[in-house]
Formats: sequence, structure tokens, C-alpha cells
Amino acid sequence: MSLPVRGRIHHVASVVRDIDASIDFHTRVLGLALEQVAEVPSQEVRIAFLTAGDSKIELVSPTNETSGVARFLESKGEGFHHLCLEVPDIAAELTALAAAGVQLINTEAVAGVEGPVAFLHPKSCNGVLIELIEVPGGPAWKKLGFGAPGELRIR
Amino acid sequence: MSLPVRGRIHHVASVVRDIDASIDFHTRVLGLALEQVAEVPSQEVRIAFLTAGDSKIELVSPTNETSGVARFLESKGEGFHHLCLEVPDIAAELTALAAAGVQLINTEAVAGVEGPVAFLHPKSCNGVLIELIEVPGGPAWKKLGFGAPGELRIR
Repeated sequence: MSLPVRGRIHHVASVVRDIDASIDFHTRVLGLALEQVAEVPSQEVRIAFLTAGDSKIELVSPTNETSGVARFLESKGEGFHHLCLEVPDIAAELTALAAAGVQLINTEAVAGVEGPVAFLHPKSCNGVLIELIEVPGGPAWKKLGFGAPGELRIR
Repeated sequence: MSLPVRGRIHHVASVVRDIDASIDFHTRVLGLALEQVAEVPSQEVRIAFLTAGDSKIELVSPTNETSGVARFLESKGEGFHHLCLEVPDIAAELTALAAAGVQLINTEAVAGVEGPVAFLHPKSCNGVLIELIEVPGGPAWKKLGFGAPGELRIR
């Protein structure tokens, strides 16, 4: 099955130990602009988004020692976590991906910080954890109770 | 020292075992457009670039069992390899980064497939291998003998 053209890199996410030091490195040393820092209680993380052209770099740091991200940091150390690609319609995408035999972590869109998202299993994606995010205003936005595009949803 | 604004994500690179299967996954299943496939003899790899919005996804596969990428694959398996950010002037960037204490893998620009590039050590970048590439037509292009932007250089 052929899917529509899509795939802007929405963001590249890394797990970092000390988010303040990492923000300092990305802003002061690499010269990227900081867009926002937020707590995401449901994920037990603090995140930061930096502007990288038309895309973003996301930094993710655990807020306790037991979260999934804390365990990732413990076992693998700091480094790349996931690649997020934008798609026009997550539900249609997930249906087509499942039909193509791709192993899905989320079988339907869930509410991410910046819009409806779903993760694909790295086993199906050459070892890369891929997140899909729906373009602002897409069909899953209203379904998941998102407000206007750009309005953040932290929970 | 404050550096100029920069940082478009030029590409995100992954190491893959079977580049043909991975190209098939990225084009047929994910729906990304294939831009080029090339052999890079100096690196003992085959690479593919796919369009991802304003950025690219690069797939890298070893062409023998002894190259650096083959050893990466052997020890870590398939997965993320590096993040490439665009900068206006690599030489100026490397000088500023070194002054800021960033450990450089390349202390000056070298010829990459798509332009002058230099790598920063992941130890200085939260565990992420960062490649810098100079914007087309920047000062290192002429210095390294590159032709017009868009003209590839495989060696």
C-alpha cells in the first residue's frame, strides 16, 4: 500500500542527565534558540525544545530514578532517543503501517505535548524508535481534545 | 562566546544492515522519497538519502566487515548514528567550539558527500555524535575544491 507524501522531521529527541547543562550547551555553545521547557508529569520527565531550522531538538531528562527514561539513562547512558516525523493523519498511517507488518507501540494516537502522537517499534524501523506526530489541525487533534495548534498540552 | 544563529537539521543518519531492505521500508512503507544512493569508497559504505521535509534521512551500510561502520553494526546493532546540523562557516564554528571546550573529532572541515563537514565528539554533546555541514557556497566549499552546491562528491 502506498502512503501519501509526508515526513518532515518534527524533532530529534535525546535523553540527557542534566537538562540545565544540556540547554546551556545547545543554546550558548551550539547557538540554538530555546523554545520551551516543560514538566511532563505523566512521563516523569522534564523536556526542552530547541529550534533547529524547520525542526526541533528535544532534550528529555528524568525527574526521578524509576521512570522509563531514568532506566534508559541507567542502561544506555545519554544519547539519541527517538526521531519524530510529521504525518497528515495518524489513524490512517497506523492502519497502513500495521497492514505493512510494522510493529506498533501505540495502535492509536495518544496525546503528546505538541499534538497527537504514536510510536513505532524500533524492531520494525532499523533499530530507530520512530514517533509520528499529526500535523496541526489534523483529524486526531479534535478527537483527543487538543485546542488550537501551538497550544501546549502538558499532563 | 556567542555563535550566530544556525542549526537546520541537514540529516539524521542511521546504520542499517541491509540498505536495500531499509530503502524499501523508508520509501514504500514510510512514504519518503529516495534522493540518491551512492558508494563512498573512502568510508567503505553505501549510503542513501531520503527526503524528510526540509531535512533528509541518511541510511549507511558497510560494504565490508572491517570498516568503522561494520564494527559499529557488530557492537551496537542497527540504529541511530549521527545528527547533522548546518552551519554558515565551519572553520569559525570549530574555532568557537574548541574555545568553549567542545571535543572535536575533526579540527578542520573535511570533504563529505554533500559538502564540507566536521564531527564533534559525543562526549561533549550528551552522547550524540554531531556532524556539522557548511551551507552550500560557504567559505570551506571552495577551499576543499567543491563545485557548485548540489554537485555531489563521492570518494
